[in-house]
Amino acid sequence: MRVAVTGATGFIGRHVLAELRRRGHETTVCVRNASVLPDQFLHMGADVREIAIGASDEPDWPDLGSPDVLIHLAWGGLPNYHSLHHFEKELPAQYSFLARLVKTGLPTLAVAGTCFEYGMQSGALGEDLVCLPGNCYGFAKNALHKQLQFLSRTHSFNLVWARLFYLYGDGQSSNSLLSQLRQAVMEGKEVFDMSGGEQLRDYLPVTTVAEFLTTLAALGQDIGAINICSGKPISVRRLVETWIRENGWKIELNLGHYPYPDYEPMAFWGKMDKLSAIISTIGGPPGDARAPHSSL
Amino acid sequence: MRVAVTGATGFIGRHVLAELRRRGHETTVCVRNASVLPDQFLHMGADVREIAIGASDEPDWPDLGSPDVLIHLAWGGLPNYHSLHHFEKELPAQYSFLARLVKTGLPTLAVAGTCFEYGMQSGALGEDLVCLPGNCYGFAKNALHKQLQFLSRTHSFNLVWARLFYLYGDGQSSNSLLSQLRQAVMEGKEVFDMSGGEQLRDYLPVTTVAEFLTTLAALGQDIGAINICSGKPISVRRLVETWIRENGWKIELNLGHYPYPDYEPMAFWGKMDKLSAIISTIGGPPGDARAPHSSL
Repeated sequence: MRVAVTGATGFIGRHVLAELRRRGHETTVCVRNASVLPDQFLHMGADVREIAIGASDEPDWPDLGSPDVLIHLAWGGLPNYHSLHHFEKELPAQYSFLARLVKTGLPTLAVAGTCFEYGMQSGALGEDLVCLPGNCYGFAKNALHKQLQFLSRTHSFNLVWARLFYLYGDGQSSNSLLSQLRQAVMEGKEVFDMSGGEQLRDYLPVTTVAEFLTTLAALGQDIGAINICSGKPISVRRLVETWIRENGWKIELNLGHYPYPDYEPMAFWGKMDKLSAIISTIGGPPGDARAPHSSL
Repeated sequence: MRVAVTGATGFIGRHVLAELRRRGHETTVCVRNASVLPDQFLHMGADVREIAIGASDEPDWPDLGSPDVLIHLAWGGLPNYHSLHHFEKELPAQYSFLARLVKTGLPTLAVAGTCFEYGMQSGALGEDLVCLPGNCYGFAKNALHKQLQFLSRTHSFNLVWARLFYLYGDGQSSNSLLSQLRQAVMEGKEVFDMSGGEQLRDYLPVTTVAEFLTTLAALGQDIGAINICSGKPISVRRLVETWIRENGWKIELNLGHYPYPDYEPMAFWGKMDKLSAIISTIGGPPGDARAPHSSL
């Protein structure tokens, strides 16, 4: 099976690409500028294609090597969730890019959505909830999903709309919680300033997310919206304490230093019934999909 | 007060322009091609500006004569509510056009929304309902509204988002119910084929809609979403019977000839509490705003 990936040089993309290769899939890496591609990609033997999302000369499906699936992870303008950029630029450009691929033959499209599509809703969030996005990023992702749904009424293709919750792991952005904590430890700081830490979130290791995404995309089925989550709420405080313990770090937490963000609900996590049902049917990925947080 | 109007040559636009002139406002008519403008517009003495929505050289606010208000009625691709055109072309082009005007100084923007933003929801629909648009037209209008709301977080302007329900009157499209009925009468037909006619809708004469739009736009206030409706459900059968009686026509109704459309709820109408409250505060437009259907 040939799988094309956009955003392959990003945090999630690198892990997805590694997982695809572990499973023996042929891969096509779609990048803006191949000349700045890290050596590791070239050594992997991946088929590299230069594409410019939003450019006038958009690629057709054959231009990407006619892949069976496209895993679409590229998205600009992050982590500023409130920027108008998300619907002024990303939404029309990304829709146009994806619609053209579908119209020229792409059979299956797996796209990274976000838990921010649900907006200011609390508790266990299922895929059937009406989305009420409260920031520009969540709005634009949700609008792209709706537009692809309308497109599917007239053009047949399989859609996997993977709503990602929180992730952590190697290669994460330097302004993520884990990266900031590690940085503080490396700098020999004795105290780590953070929020009250009581907010409940849904976290997965990025390697598990990559396994789920790869599994779902490779099914070649019209799965629709699906949460990529653990299904288990965890307080940010406990998460940080776990990272500290597992890494053998020594640092105190200064809880309550920062206020809670006003653009996120205090407590929300994903329902993973739909994901669990699919994973259990096919035997599951390496490890135990139902308990990806066993160490937490 | 100077009021600019897009879509001024359309069904609603002609009535809005006439109402603006009746009230003594200065008007700017925005058209794609001034050379094909009907004589009546030139005789009115309106300031005519050629603009191309979606073109690369979008106008700034001063290019429209720095109006106090823009009443934005232009929208392409109708009446095909299911066409991808609405979000592939209209949504990005219209947002870009409006955002540029706001960013360059436009103080108040009144835009024609649609009852189709509510989607497949039945009964009396209020502005606070979560919108669940079921066709591409309703989706694109609702998305434009949301994008303008996000824009207003960083750029100050007053927004009137006028959700239009059903309209009838002079100058209506030839495929509207009233036009088709009149055509059948003119052709001397004895029978008019229609649906069962039991579906409940919310209809206003276009002249009343023009009065409401003009009143709301001229307030120069941030009114947000507001239904432009009668607040009273009426069956399509009764509506047609009323038109026949008022015009003294002779024609029989063949009820049930066509099926009911599957993309509209069987019964929905607007709540007009918000509109009534505003109209009553300012003394109301000509006629009785609370009973625009007194003849029905």
